Amino acid sequence: MENKTQIGAAPDRASVARIEGALYRGAEQYFKKEGFVHVASVPHMVDITGACENVDTLYEIDYHGKTAFLTQTGQTGLEILLADGLEKVCCMIHSFRKEEQADNRHLTEFPLVELEFAYNPSTEDGFEQLLGHIEKTIKSMIRNAVETEGKTLEMLGTDVLTLENVLKHPFYRISYDDAVKMLPVEWGRDLEQRDERLLVTSHGRRPLFVTRYPEEIKFFNMQRNKENPLVVNSTDLLLPYSGEAVGAAVRESNYDLLVEKLKKSDMFRILSGKGKTLEDFRTYLDAVKANPVPHAGCGIGLPRVTQFVLGTKDIKKATAYPMNKHSL
Amino acid sequence: MENKTQIGAAPDRASVARIEGALYRGAEQYFKKEGFVHVASVPHMVDITGACENVDTLYEIDYHGKTAFLTQTGQTGLEILLADGLEKVCCMIHSFRKEEQADNRHLTEFPLVELEFAYNPSTEDGFEQLLGHIEKTIKSMIRNAVETEGKTLEMLGTDVLTLENVLKHPFYRISYDDAVKMLPVEWGRDLEQRDERLLVTSHGRRPLFVTRYPEEIKFFNMQRNKENPLVVNSTDLLLPYSGEAVGAAVRESNYDLLVEKLKKSDMFRILSGKGKTLEDFRTYLDAVKANPVPHAGCGIGLPRVTQFVLGTKDIKKATAYPMNKHSL
Repeated sequence: MENKTQIGAAPDRASVARIEGALYRGAEQYFKKEGFVHVASVPHMVDITGACENVDTLYEIDYHGKTAFLTQTGQTGLEILLADGLEKVCCMIHSFRKEEQADNRHLTEFPLVELEFAYNPSTEDGFEQLLGHIEKTIKSMIRNAVETEGKTLEMLGTDVLTLENVLKHPFYRISYDDAVKMLPVEWGRDLEQRDERLLVTSHGRRPLFVTRYPEEIKFFNMQRNKENPLVVNSTDLLLPYSGEAVGAAVRESNYDLLVEKLKKSDMFRILSGKGKTLEDFRTYLDAVKANPVPHAGCGIGLPRVTQFVLGTKDIKKATAYPMNKHSL
Repeated sequence: MENKTQIGAAPDRASVARIEGALYRGAEQYFKKEGFVHVASVPHMVDITGACENVDTLYEIDYHGKTAFLTQTGQTGLEILLADGLEKVCCMIHSFRKEEQADNRHLTEFPLVELEFAYNPSTEDGFEQLLGHIEKTIKSMIRNAVETEGKTLEMLGTDVLTLENVLKHPFYRISYDDAVKMLPVEWGRDLEQRDERLLVTSHGRRPLFVTRYPEEIKFFNMQRNKENPLVVNSTDLLLPYSGEAVGAAVRESNYDLLVEKLKKSDMFRILSGKGKTLEDFRTYLDAVKANPVPHAGCGIGLPRVTQFVLGTKDIKKATAYPMNKHSL
């Protein structure tokens, strides 16, 4: 796996491809059963509105004389279809990150499984539904890998019993507030890899939802919590070996609040420095204005799930084509 | 649909997304049933080896100081896994074409469904198997759309009876040799859109395989035909409304012949002019040398199938996110 340009030197690549594929199909199985429409054409070449996950790691392309970007999330492509009237949508895109670090944790390109759904806030709890969809998707992924690629998993030395055990129990949950009390972390700071490891270890090395992060460190369109306006209705799912494998939130659907949150976001400050204005977010803002559907969604980094399933600390061993700055 | 930046102005986008998704899932259903491994991580940022479908329409990216390209086909990513020992592989990538024409027929980005499979030439006919896989994949796509999105198809004014009729009959076939006899086309020239229309119309407006094109106008790695060395074991599938929706071939697995064919190809001539050499194809050539597995495969342009299903001559109406030079 280490040297991907040397063909034939990767005895496990075929096996890893099998596991990746089985995990993906497990997610699709759940989506199909639950009535999620698979959106096949979510664009990978996007303007700044569609691109943002981490503004500092965008690949630029010369798009017929204009600057465009390789996408990092298909979220807006999905959200616009909710505004168009679909209730549940999903996709698998490739997410691109211009990472200068070529290590055990970073990839420059990887498959990202995403879902968004609309809900009725007067009768439904969007946040609870979101956590439910994530847990059931991840379990469907693992179940399908165990059921269809059991022999491959054994050959790769995977601890299948641990996986089966994960399927039997609800995922643990902890709020960000409670998490920082357990950690040497000041409230308001993001969790580092070592913090995530500590949390997972202290929760029986099983999947762990960390809920309601501080608004300031999260993406601008995450919904502010009513009881505690300092945090947002977000969750990260931490997995043993890989750490954060899923990022998720209820999205803000109040137009005025959304604009206010955008303006004061770190991302907007950085983009303003690059000459971007509110107008660059017009497509997205207009969609919310035209049809402010309450909705929520998540992105699941496929190699991070594969890492957990294979029990490896090296993400390069958890995808058939590990891409970093040295790959091309 | 015409103005994708104006959100809310696309009453059919949600319906088109439903059809696209159902067609994709129909393909996946067939692949899963037949034991194709879904390769989720086929890279979209590639070197010249992985990029080539049409050398003139490549988007370039600055990849950490080197020039890389946005892929046009995942073929080599799949083929390498056959060399690694998998027997049947498939994927859905996004294919990128720097098309200056923004018309009813060209997109700059679209989903491409691909498959490759190994076969045993002493007991199996790879070319027949290839045509079989294509026909059954396309039929599974159409069947799933009819079965799961019947109401959406009706709402979009689709002629469902015609689709059901297509499912009942084997696809027509004609050799390139016989096709040019019916057309005002000289042997050795590629077929234009008007030629494809004429052929499809004269074959009852049903899907039509055109087989065994001249070697000179096809991709270098297509296998030369034994009986007639002027043609290759390739096929295009033509569909009413959209024309060429599938490109397919048995791949050359004889290393020496492959190198000879690469050297004399048009593509190589163009790339040589840009400073590329045989060494730029080393990854691919080495994979074939290390494990020369006889194999065949195809790429299915999803919007071209959707065009046929929806009965529209405008590809912009056959994908939820039609991308052309004006989109960003």
